[in-house]
Amino acid sequence: MDFIQLTKRQLEIMDIVKAEQPITSEHIAEKINLTRATLRPDLTILTMIGILEARPKVGYFYSGKSLLSVMGSFIKNMSVMEVKSKPVIVSEENTVYDSIVTMFLEDTGNIYVQNKGYLSGIVSRKDFIKVTLGNHDIKNLPVAMIMTRMPNIVYVESNESVYDAAVKIIHHEIDSLPVVEKIVLDDKSENMKIIGKISKTTITKVMVRIGNE
Amino acid sequence: MDFIQLTKRQLEIMDIVKAEQPITSEHIAEKINLTRATLRPDLTILTMIGILEARPKVGYFYSGKSLLSVMGSFIKNMSVMEVKSKPVIVSEENTVYDSIVTMFLEDTGNIYVQNKGYLSGIVSRKDFIKVTLGNHDIKNLPVAMIMTRMPNIVYVESNESVYDAAVKIIHHEIDSLPVVEKIVLDDKSENMKIIGKISKTTITKVMVRIGNE
Repeated sequence: MDFIQLTKRQLEIMDIVKAEQPITSEHIAEKINLTRATLRPDLTILTMIGILEARPKVGYFYSGKSLLSVMGSFIKNMSVMEVKSKPVIVSEENTVYDSIVTMFLEDTGNIYVQNKGYLSGIVSRKDFIKVTLGNHDIKNLPVAMIMTRMPNIVYVESNESVYDAAVKIIHHEIDSLPVVEKIVLDDKSENMKIIGKISKTTITKVMVRIGNE
Repeated sequence: MDFIQLTKRQLEIMDIVKAEQPITSEHIAEKINLTRATLRPDLTILTMIGILEARPKVGYFYSGKSLLSVMGSFIKNMSVMEVKSKPVIVSEENTVYDSIVTMFLEDTGNIYVQNKGYLSGIVSRKDFIKVTLGNHDIKNLPVAMIMTRMPNIVYVESNESVYDAAVKIIHHEIDSLPVVEKIVLDDKSENMKIIGKISKTTITKVMVRIGNE
């Protein structure tokens, strides 16, 4: 817990409350042989940063909560734009075979498919296994035949957070999300430009980055 | 930043320092029309929890650091045992075809392979795509023929953290790690019992959990 530069005495108080909660300030003071007045600033700080919780007439409780809330708000404020990776994109006419080769060369789990410069589909390793199991002529089969299409594509936009992305990935049981910019054309149709990718790998990298700090 | 129950005034100070760092307490006091004495407790608290950094004769700096360190130490203290998921396991004699069916039924990216109750290999979706592309009789080919074997399997043990697991996944560019318990047999050979699995999905779920708090 030294990250918030708690003093030795504050750490001691924390440990006492953790072990004996609920405990009044009188009892804490007794235990470390100091007056309540001396302890007051420490208790105030520990309560303010959320490590302790004070309940009138009951005493102090230990609450690890604040740490998690700090992290929660951090992830909710980290934009997908800060961490997005480079997507691998092919066009609809690409054959399944060529797309598989691309998948291996780029070592990616999902390939995004474009039509006229806009997102039209996603293919996954699972799609590739299914089609290679069947007796298809994958060297002539366009990838558009096996891809997942709009409106079944789950995506994120630039104003969404890493947390939003993680929630979508888990909720929809998918491996990655294209980061898109919506563009309304003259004919009022809405199209999506692919500007990045957030995958479980991206999220795992964020975890490593957080741990490295 | 309400997670640490900062007061409105503390938030105001934080914003001022963020925008004008380095800034002295005199200048902060001026900006919000209060005396330095009134501000002192706020500045103390903000410095203690690491949101501000005070440098003598220079002034206050804004430091987002503490938040990251809080998170870093949290992830480093979260054991893989707390978050591990249930692995999908087949035996070496299982055919490739049956293993693929298992992969689809269980919707998993990696299957762990056992021999006599101990971990002997891992197969991934990539392995399955490669073998189905080749002209193999996958209904008669044992999965042991295409799996990655020891000592090329990266794993974690029960005393490792979620952070350790994330680092291994990114460093080795893999999708999951078996959580193992090492067992030394009478003949001194070391074997590994599979007791769980940590995947990028697990890590992404941890991220969602943190954000939900």
